[in-house]
Amino acid sequence: MRVLGGTAMSNEARRLNRVLGRAHPAALRCLSPLGRKLAFPRGIPFQAAEARDSRIDATIGQLTDGGGRPLPLPLLEASVRDLDLPSTFLYSPIDGPPALRRVWRDRERRIAGHPAIATTLPIVTHGLTHGLSIVADLFADKSTDVLVPVPAWENYELLFQLHAGARIVPYPFFGDSGFAVSALEAALRTVRKKAIVVLNFPSNPHGYMPTPAEARAIVDVITAHPGPVVAVTDDAYQGWVYEPDLHPRSIFWDLAEKGDPERLLPIKVDGATKELVFFASRVGFLTFGAIEGDAEAALASKVKTVIRGTVGMASGPAMAMALRALHDPALDAAFAERRDILARRYRILKNGLAALDPKRFRVRPFNSAYFALVELTNGLQAEDVRRKLLADHSVGTIAFPVENAIRLAYCSIHEDRLPELVAAFARAAR
Amino acid sequence: MRVLGGTAMSNEARRLNRVLGRAHPAALRCLSPLGRKLAFPRGIPFQAAEARDSRIDATIGQLTDGGGRPLPLPLLEASVRDLDLPSTFLYSPIDGPPALRRVWRDRERRIAGHPAIATTLPIVTHGLTHGLSIVADLFADKSTDVLVPVPAWENYELLFQLHAGARIVPYPFFGDSGFAVSALEAALRTVRKKAIVVLNFPSNPHGYMPTPAEARAIVDVITAHPGPVVAVTDDAYQGWVYEPDLHPRSIFWDLAEKGDPERLLPIKVDGATKELVFFASRVGFLTFGAIEGDAEAALASKVKTVIRGTVGMASGPAMAMALRALHDPALDAAFAERRDILARRYRILKNGLAALDPKRFRVRPFNSAYFALVELTNGLQAEDVRRKLLADHSVGTIAFPVENAIRLAYCSIHEDRLPELVAAFARAAR
Repeated sequence: MRVLGGTAMSNEARRLNRVLGRAHPAALRCLSPLGRKLAFPRGIPFQAAEARDSRIDATIGQLTDGGGRPLPLPLLEASVRDLDLPSTFLYSPIDGPPALRRVWRDRERRIAGHPAIATTLPIVTHGLTHGLSIVADLFADKSTDVLVPVPAWENYELLFQLHAGARIVPYPFFGDSGFAVSALEAALRTVRKKAIVVLNFPSNPHGYMPTPAEARAIVDVITAHPGPVVAVTDDAYQGWVYEPDLHPRSIFWDLAEKGDPERLLPIKVDGATKELVFFASRVGFLTFGAIEGDAEAALASKVKTVIRGTVGMASGPAMAMALRALHDPALDAAFAERRDILARRYRILKNGLAALDPKRFRVRPFNSAYFALVELTNGLQAEDVRRKLLADHSVGTIAFPVENAIRLAYCSIHEDRLPELVAAFARAAR
Repeated sequence: MRVLGGTAMSNEARRLNRVLGRAHPAALRCLSPLGRKLAFPRGIPFQAAEARDSRIDATIGQLTDGGGRPLPLPLLEASVRDLDLPSTFLYSPIDGPPALRRVWRDRERRIAGHPAIATTLPIVTHGLTHGLSIVADLFADKSTDVLVPVPAWENYELLFQLHAGARIVPYPFFGDSGFAVSALEAALRTVRKKAIVVLNFPSNPHGYMPTPAEARAIVDVITAHPGPVVAVTDDAYQGWVYEPDLHPRSIFWDLAEKGDPERLLPIKVDGATKELVFFASRVGFLTFGAIEGDAEAALASKVKTVIRGTVGMASGPAMAMALRALHDPALDAAFAERRDILARRYRILKNGLAALDPKRFRVRPFNSAYFALVELTNGLQAEDVRRKLLADHSVGTIAFPVENAIRLAYCSIHEDRLPELVAAFARAAR
């Protein structure tokens, strides 16, 4: 009996790494020890994929009628309407149904203005968090510096630091005017060996989308770095923008346009969560930019291995629903209607916050996403104000102690109640 | 600006570990370095949970009407019927909707004959693979020996060895008569420091459920071990049993009954995948046995931290569908009808395989699940036979090269085609 050690590297993993070494040196140099070992095994899913068109397919462990059709319990089938039943009830490929991947790619390119840039076919993930977790598994280790603005979504710490052991290098989100490009540049100068730059626009918790000039400056400092750098755009709030003249697309496209495989690997993480107003879906996508030829297959093999060995594919009903929605010509109009609801809330909140005493509250710039962040400059502690708001006014908010700020998620408040929210906030922070 | 290192342990993690040290020493001693550091941060989900019943809830980043109701796109809402819309479209708690967790607990206890054993409320996972991945994150590291029978589901290698760096200790599944309890016992004697014992009954790829006597012997050797041991039952195929007089419940319950917190932590991993004939659902559950009091909250905090920092909660539509099905009084009859379809296929295949030449084929014992495993004793290589079956007969099967065996998944073949499958197999292996 062989005892299997934890450190072996398979021949297939060696082959994939050689491919990356030729076709995308930055990707190879950024790989974590786990990332270097990843290679899709020639096991059950591999052998099952080979047999997909066979006359009698005795490979897959799922109940069908014998002709590839599912036999769902009737009481479960009764919960769905006009959905593709095999995708709803049976296993899908580990990287997601090809039709869903293609329609998402086409949509994202259309939204970005059809850039003539090579990108990979998006791989379906179990939501955006999972997409970021895959990036951490592939590229983060103890010698990785992960550049994250402050404040940012707190979960980056769990994803990159707690789970992957990387070093988080924080830098201030805002400078004297707008996004602190010079702080990002300074943080990039401290990189020890390799870096992951996390870019989240529109941002959480600020609700900030950069201007075109800011976006250009961000791209310039990242592409000027000698690398190797993985630049991952967390595009969760893509499309939720309420002011004109902001950067019209994800920075992923600008990075991919200038991508240099010797130095930079751009990765786009996005999904149905907010873009289809489908928060519970857990349907996300992972796309590599500036990747061509057999480097795509090499990275896809590694990503599939991570997915197989942690959570399996995404959930069928949500993927079937997303696919149906993405084929519906009414989708853009339906989304715009929801965005308009939020745009109205945005303007009402903006006006309300503008009336606060600027000596006691510093309202951080916001123009997009679901939030406003208000810094307390009146000597009170954000956590105390949060507790007071909850106890005395029954108003729930999120405190950011390091910034001494309160985040107001106006996405879940009716516009008629927003003046009340601002009034309660002003009173609690008195 | 603070630079955050990857090794810090929070005060909350220290507190949880002290709780486990008192209430469940075996759990504490089995924790991996990551497991010891896990503690749910007092961040956004924590603060949002505190505000759940507030009058104005400005905590969560999802679009609602202001009264907690979702505003799904109409074209997405049209895909579901009679489902709870908040669970279908909005974020759920990270550990799953309480109603779903309770109804699953009640169902599992009922199926097991209502044992009077303390277990934790099941935590919802993104399918069974994810449940096992959580076990690996919490308890597997370089000094962990993971006992896995051979052959077993290949994915245990990715989960425990590739991702967590543990040592896989294989032992033969079958001995001279039935499950090789003495081989498991011998493997347990080689444990260096701490162990994870993976038990999968009914099993993949054998399709084998032990007899009551075998189950007792398995429990005896595990509970006799000085520990610390984590015993995880992968109960994917629970309920898919076609012969009488087999062990009538998951071995989890027997382990939990004899559980000794100084030595043993039993964990049950199960889910809707096969138990609700809902393969695409990615709805699984993780339950700890022999756990009481504040040890439950301590382990739950660690599990929630893993989920938050890797994939987030499970998918809403699938959870809403599972919840509705679990409340339907017709569920047991609907499941039995599907099991009967497979029981007929099982008998036809069993008869067909019994007619093969025993000098050239050794049909491994099978009585449950979705598979039969046939060893080739005629000098041919399993991988060659698999390729020949695919190329010459358009029949897809899975080869297990180490055992020189072919796995036949009869779950996806109509009963009328099974004689043809056996005939093609016999011809290809001639």
